[in-house]
Amino acid sequence: MLVEFGGTRVLCAASVQDSVPRWRRDSGLGWVTAEYAMLPRATNTRTDRESVKGRLGGRTQEISRLVGRSIRACLDFKALGENTVQLDCDVLQADGGTRTAAITGAYVALADAVGWMRERGLCKGDPLIASVAAVSVGVVDGQPRLDLCYEEDVAAGTDMNVVCTGDGRFVEVQGTAEGAPFDRAELDALLDLAAGGCAELTRLQNEVLGR
Amino acid sequence: MLVEFGGTRVLCAASVQDSVPRWRRDSGLGWVTAEYAMLPRATNTRTDRESVKGRLGGRTQEISRLVGRSIRACLDFKALGENTVQLDCDVLQADGGTRTAAITGAYVALADAVGWMRERGLCKGDPLIASVAAVSVGVVDGQPRLDLCYEEDVAAGTDMNVVCTGDGRFVEVQGTAEGAPFDRAELDALLDLAAGGCAELTRLQNEVLGR
Amino acid sequence: MLVEFGGTRVLCAASVQDSVPRWRRDSGLGWVTAEYAMLPRATNTRTDRESVKGRLGGRTQEISRLVGRSIRACLDFKALGENTVQLDCDVLQADGGTRTAAITGAYVALADAVGWMRERGLCKGDPLIASVAAVSVGVVDGQPRLDLCYEEDVAAGTDMNVVCTGDGRFVEVQGTAEGAPFDRAELDALLDLAAGGCAELTRLQNEVLGR
Amino acid sequence: MLVEFGGTRVLCAASVQDSVPRWRRDSGLGWVTAEYAMLPRATNTRTDRESVKGRLGGRTQEISRLVGRSIRACLDFKALGENTVQLDCDVLQADGGTRTAAITGAYVALADAVGWMRERGLCKGDPLIASVAAVSVGVVDGQPRLDLCYEEDVAAGTDMNVVCTGDGRFVEVQGTAEGAPFDRAELDALLDLAAGGCAELTRLQNEVLGR
Amino acid sequence: MLVEFGGTRVLCAASVQDSVPRWRRDSGLGWVTAEYAMLPRATNTRTDRESVKGRLGGRTQEISRLVGRSIRACLDFKALGENTVQLDCDVLQADGGTRTAAITGAYVALADAVGWMRERGLCKGDPLIASVAAVSVGVVDGQPRLDLCYEEDVAAGTDMNVVCTGDGRFVEVQGTAEGAPFDRAELDALLDLAAGGCAELTRLQNEVLGR
Amino acid sequence: MLVEFGGTRVLCAASVQDSVPRWRRDSGLGWVTAEYAMLPRATNTRTDRESVKGRLGGRTQEISRLVGRSIRACLDFKALGENTVQLDCDVLQADGGTRTAAITGAYVALADAVGWMRERGLCKGDPLIASVAAVSVGVVDGQPRLDLCYEEDVAAGTDMNVVCTGDGRFVEVQGTAEGAPFDRAELDALLDLAAGGCAELTRLQNEVLGR
Repeated sequence: MLVEFGGTRVLCAASVQDSVPRWRRDSGLGWVTAEYAMLPRATNTRTDRESVKGRLGGRTQEISRLVGRSIRACLDFKALGENTVQLDCDVLQADGGTRTAAITGAYVALADAVGWMRERGLCKGDPLIASVAAVSVGVVDGQPRLDLCYEEDVAAGTDMNVVCTGDGRFVEVQGTAEGAPFDRAELDALLDLAAGGCAELTRLQNEVLGR
Repeated sequence: MLVEFGGTRVLCAASVQDSVPRWRRDSGLGWVTAEYAMLPRATNTRTDRESVKGRLGGRTQEISRLVGRSIRACLDFKALGENTVQLDCDVLQADGGTRTAAITGAYVALADAVGWMRERGLCKGDPLIASVAAVSVGVVDGQPRLDLCYEEDVAAGTDMNVVCTGDGRFVEVQGTAEGAPFDRAELDALLDLAAGGCAELTRLQNEVLGR
Repeated sequence: MLVEFGGTRVLCAASVQDSVPRWRRDSGLGWVTAEYAMLPRATNTRTDRESVKGRLGGRTQEISRLVGRSIRACLDFKALGENTVQLDCDVLQADGGTRTAAITGAYVALADAVGWMRERGLCKGDPLIASVAAVSVGVVDGQPRLDLCYEEDVAAGTDMNVVCTGDGRFVEVQGTAEGAPFDRAELDALLDLAAGGCAELTRLQNEVLGR
Repeated sequence: MLVEFGGTRVLCAASVQDSVPRWRRDSGLGWVTAEYAMLPRATNTRTDRESVKGRLGGRTQEISRLVGRSIRACLDFKALGENTVQLDCDVLQADGGTRTAAITGAYVALADAVGWMRERGLCKGDPLIASVAAVSVGVVDGQPRLDLCYEEDVAAGTDMNVVCTGDGRFVEVQGTAEGAPFDRAELDALLDLAAGGCAELTRLQNEVLGR
Repeated sequence: MLVEFGGTRVLCAASVQDSVPRWRRDSGLGWVTAEYAMLPRATNTRTDRESVKGRLGGRTQEISRLVGRSIRACLDFKALGENTVQLDCDVLQADGGTRTAAITGAYVALADAVGWMRERGLCKGDPLIASVAAVSVGVVDGQPRLDLCYEEDVAAGTDMNVVCTGDGRFVEVQGTAEGAPFDRAELDALLDLAAGGCAELTRLQNEVLGR
Repeated sequence: MLVEFGGTRVLCAASVQDSVPRWRRDSGLGWVTAEYAMLPRATNTRTDRESVKGRLGGRTQEISRLVGRSIRACLDFKALGENTVQLDCDVLQADGGTRTAAITGAYVALADAVGWMRERGLCKGDPLIASVAAVSVGVVDGQPRLDLCYEEDVAAGTDMNVVCTGDGRFVEVQGTAEGAPFDRAELDALLDLAAGGCAELTRLQNEVLGR
């Protein structure tokens, strides 16, 4: 599925395999893993391919780990059974918030794949114990803002990525002072804004999934 | 630009840089290079990422070299000036003939970029001395066929990729006996078919480019 | 310098170079970069060397990036001048909280190196605009806890790393639900606890630095 | 065995293993694979080693794939049984046409290895259903020429590598316009010339193999 | 354990695994392997990390091989049983003679690990058939010298590393003319000196091991 | 040039470049470097290519370093001027003693290249201050033996490689106890034998070089 947030477009796909990584075998539990990548022309100025450079950059690995961790928070691995869902999030066009778009889209791809598996009786129950959505928030010109585009992102004093479940609890909170450190009041304002944004995305996810 | 041939979809982009590789400096000549890649879910069964494996596969490098070589055949590097055009061909969905779709699309992206450069006076004349298009042909059930889809490709006894200029001359001919070796008559029939296919693609390219 | 937090021991060293990376040249600004690594026997069960495997793991790169980002938050790069400080944080023994120990120790190593530079007149003023310290906090058996050891870390439902300046503002907040997602109240309790822990570490850093 | 074509010298060796790659196990079928490489001083100007650079170049992989594909065209894998023949083609001295010399020599090394296997009863019949030989042809000063040396190769307007079976059918045809694109008449002349060259090489192969 | 020879400090650790490498399975024999590495700030001027460069340097591999080979000379692999001891020698501070300090310390770590294994009945007897110690010797200003520090090492005309067993026999002798080649008399003088140095180290090892 | 010692055949080539590595520029001094490698079929059982594996093995790097170090011992870098000689030693066939054959052959290739340079006035004098030759010796069935073939090498209790100058001094001595440690008397006997072997090789080198 293709996720679009403003100028950001991420292609999210889920692949199901009826086996699990070696360290998980014979545990009765499934696994979900994610890979995030950007096409060289997703950015305004071309970025070199990591396949050509022969090594994954730190940013790519960090985001892949974040997506996987966030998505795993919404799963009952026992109900999934010994299956692996591999999520691929490929950024076709980047305009800020690619990692949160990837998480939000990956959840929909996962829910879709889980539906497909349940129709075929490949799961032992409903592995989806929660839905997951993510937004980026930041402080631009002293004002908290939701879903920054690339230009705002660069200008933001503080940048925060928040992953929430559909019922409003937090799965991941990552806030970074890009310029001046931030105080507790700013942090609180950003968390409020992010929680609202995630709730709205949850609504859209449900719509797409026909719930 | 997005090229679609049946079920095959390739995203082709051109990036212009006002410098050339080191070995080409102070020659007054430009350069064009190409990179071909497939998203992991372009294929029916997921393919592992080459960035994660840490090395480019032989197939990827071979096709990248073919695309670059084919596109360079239509260029006057002196007119291009000391600029580099980097072509990126990313396969979003694969259903046979991805390398020929990449060449055909890369030419359009190049022509577009050259137009952009000429508007800004970045070239010394018209670097496009020819247009280039490519098709795959093969023998399926004893019959020569144009533009095979994946299933036909697998079934084909002989597989041939042909790159032609807009005036019908050959830039590259690559024929491989997948099963039984082929004789001269079969080779001739495939070349005829391919030349016709390239002529049709040339017409479509001109249409897209508004010529 | 050797930092010890309970069973965790991290060797932090600063190296000064009178040049900056290429992309920063002739800007008049300095740079600070950090590398984090673990000795194979730092952990209870031996971990394979990343130099032998030939690639840096995602976790290592993620923590190296976090340490560098956190430390850069306390610097005036103009006052540092075109010098680079390279921080090395090598974990000799790991018992939880290695990344926060690395940040806290790296700040002391940096302050030390800056002192050495100022004595020799290598800086244009005082580049240290703030001090930086970090703690890990988590919820164990429903209770917020400071500075978890390895066993507590594994048992923790939520794990949070917080980097603060000496005056109590936030540089980085990273909270992850290891088990069940956490609500706003838990998040608030952890942030309070962490702020207190950082204040205590700031006091110890000042003591060590003889302020 | 050492193959010499003018100034080109290629060492071709076949190694037999009584197993097949994992994806081929329990199929009853054998496999043949090839690796092509050049010594650093095979060329006039020293070339850096790919082992030192830590990655195989695109050209090396492309030729290795071509040699393997060409040789596999002459084999009945059922008769070979679950054995693998590994062909190594190492260029000691290069003066044009190294890839076609490698194919022609690799066939002889293979035929030799198959003879050795049949003497020991390791095959279930005769796996060699055809012989394979290859030549390079090109247009120099407007004239089609067979087996170009390095200087002619550089000067050639069109360069073509042709792999034929002993009975004159085509296994692989690869033609590239190095300078100006070529027309159908030139292509036909080159194919005629190549077919004749391959027939002559087939005769020499049979002589060497004592047939 | 931490070994100190003058300004050189090496952390040596032994890890026991109840299995052996694949090529050694079902032989009834154990295995010992060693890895040597230097922290980036062990040297006076910072050295880049091999994990960051993505490949092990030749010097690191050469010393790792030497340590492993030397230590294996003192072992009865049958008595060790199908266990592997992995030795890690990490140089925290380097001031000459790091490879010989690593060997001397690795033996003590091994003896310690073997004691631990014997207490638990994991060995079939005493696998330690000899003790092993190593020194570096060299000629400085025409005089043979024992255990050179970094400055002497640089100044030395000839550099020799000698590994001896506790009963005074040689396990490894590596002498290199850094400047002028050396004659037999110099070689003899260095060997005498080295044998004496190893005897002294053997005494210290026994002391540490409480023998 | 091709060196043959019994069943061992090594191709040694020298390449001259009129520049030096970056760290040596503007020093007025030249440089010599060496690379050692084995073809996959040099050994009885095929060895995998290091270029395909994507990393140089420890043994290859160790021998390359040894060859370079040994050859550099016979050179006056000032007389060589700011030129680099790159030595390539490629083992076509291995039957024991490949590293010493490589050193002995590399010296001849170097002397040849130096002659070529002097004819063209590229050196400032005679850079060859000594000749260098190498042998392997070992103890087989209790008897010291010169130039072991592969089978003897495997059987040898002690293995020693000795590099000498033409006037009988030592450049490198590397002795390893493969089985039981060796005593001083054995060491002395091996050194005597090696010195004699090197003298004989020096005579042959002079013959080949027409001195």
